[in-house]
Amino acid sequence: MSKTLVDPFPYHTLQLGLVFDRAREFDLIHSHVDYYAYPYTRLVATPTVTTLHGRLDLPELLPIYDRYREVNLVSISDAQREPLAGLDLNWVATIYHGLPVAKLGPFHPQPGDYLAYLGRISPEKRPEIAILIAKETGIPLKIAAKVDRVDRSYYEHAIKPWIEPPHIEYIGEISEEEKSAFLGEAYATLFPIEWPEPFGLIMIESLACGTPVVARRFGSVQEIMAHGLTGFICDSVREMIDAVGRIPDIDRQACRRHVEERFTDSVMAKNYESVYQRLRG
Amino acid sequence: MSKTLVDPFPYHTLQLGLVFDRAREFDLIHSHVDYYAYPYTRLVATPTVTTLHGRLDLPELLPIYDRYREVNLVSISDAQREPLAGLDLNWVATIYHGLPVAKLGPFHPQPGDYLAYLGRISPEKRPEIAILIAKETGIPLKIAAKVDRVDRSYYEHAIKPWIEPPHIEYIGEISEEEKSAFLGEAYATLFPIEWPEPFGLIMIESLACGTPVVARRFGSVQEIMAHGLTGFICDSVREMIDAVGRIPDIDRQACRRHVEERFTDSVMAKNYESVYQRLRG
Repeated sequence: MSKTLVDPFPYHTLQLGLVFDRAREFDLIHSHVDYYAYPYTRLVATPTVTTLHGRLDLPELLPIYDRYREVNLVSISDAQREPLAGLDLNWVATIYHGLPVAKLGPFHPQPGDYLAYLGRISPEKRPEIAILIAKETGIPLKIAAKVDRVDRSYYEHAIKPWIEPPHIEYIGEISEEEKSAFLGEAYATLFPIEWPEPFGLIMIESLACGTPVVARRFGSVQEIMAHGLTGFICDSVREMIDAVGRIPDIDRQACRRHVEERFTDSVMAKNYESVYQRLRG
Repeated sequence: MSKTLVDPFPYHTLQLGLVFDRAREFDLIHSHVDYYAYPYTRLVATPTVTTLHGRLDLPELLPIYDRYREVNLVSISDAQREPLAGLDLNWVATIYHGLPVAKLGPFHPQPGDYLAYLGRISPEKRPEIAILIAKETGIPLKIAAKVDRVDRSYYEHAIKPWIEPPHIEYIGEISEEEKSAFLGEAYATLFPIEWPEPFGLIMIESLACGTPVVARRFGSVQEIMAHGLTGFICDSVREMIDAVGRIPDIDRQACRRHVEERFTDSVMAKNYESVYQRLRG
């Protein structure tokens, strides 16, 4: 979108109009725009299903979810539903994200010699814990991350002072193409989050390359990871440091297989087809 | 709204749902939420009319207005329509804002000794021109204004260095109750805007108190003001300075009457009733 356009809502609204004007032509409408479509679902006969992509623990969401309990909802993890558990919503399935099999990066059978951190630099992602782990274990850390404008001050004060190449390296934002090599060539990927992560694509992207993940137990992590098989799920920074020492116990082939069996586009598509069939009635 | 709530859109969406769910109960729906309601208008049989309150010269508005040309629109000035003139929209009326007659402040027959500036401190309102006029004419200026967070730096750099009480005074934000005395006790109100003002309530609030307005020719100004009767409409800062010198020619009683005849709640209500009748068919 052009930088001269400041407001995305005219386009959200236009998109909803384009779809719901033609509701009768569709067997089913699959919405990915959170609550924006809910009022429309009562004004047309075509069934709608909404996949929720974000965190649901914001207090301003309660009134609208409370009013639209009948809306068909798909969560991207069971954990994602928790903040709204009191509302008795109409959850029709949890369907995990899947990576396109054709585009799964190459499998990297040999571990590299660095720890990888990939994601936004923001307080809820806790990149400073990744730095702490690198310092404690003596293993180099590479941070590939975007700094959003809102997180600029956090980066300047909490992260930048700790960057000391080559031990703690900040390589900035990387492209989709660079991701696979960055993750695949790592010893392990660190996922030190401290927020209700609804899914966490980085975990399956890393595992697809064969690189185990050391993660903190928040949000969806227990559903995506198999503790001791694809890496480790930890309750403290101390456990994360210990877990990095146990990375040689993890079979990189098993990490890849974990994704191939559970988190591919074809698994995801099959699950959605089943939901579509059910809702068409 | 509580400060812990960061996103207003769940409430906008909820509000639209509350109204359009019950569309059949209403003879007509009058929307004040810009384009948000447009897609809904095609999904219910109840006629809708939308009063537009903002500027319409933002490029992101074009596609959605283009798609919903049939929506019944009320502008708050003819000038407000101009940016969308190419789209052949369904304008059903221009209805000016009206002040509640019961709450019209007291009429101030005698001019005070200062120039008043009331409004936001923002570049498009050009408060620095008010300062320039005060300096050139030697008449004191009182600035009653809010500084939004986004305009803080503009205030610090462009306005604050010029504040020199008692000649140039910044009195901060004032309450609704204080407005009438602030405007009514002024010699004239300055309205040095440089943006497509859709209406400009300050002008009629000042005139209602009897205080003439010296304004720049932008947006709705020519529709709200009567040049030479309620103050002056100017094309340059030089003209504004000269106009301040001609304020004694203006009859403060005529300023008050101008509002009583054109810009009251009862005039506005009568105009809306006529639109409602027409649209109910």
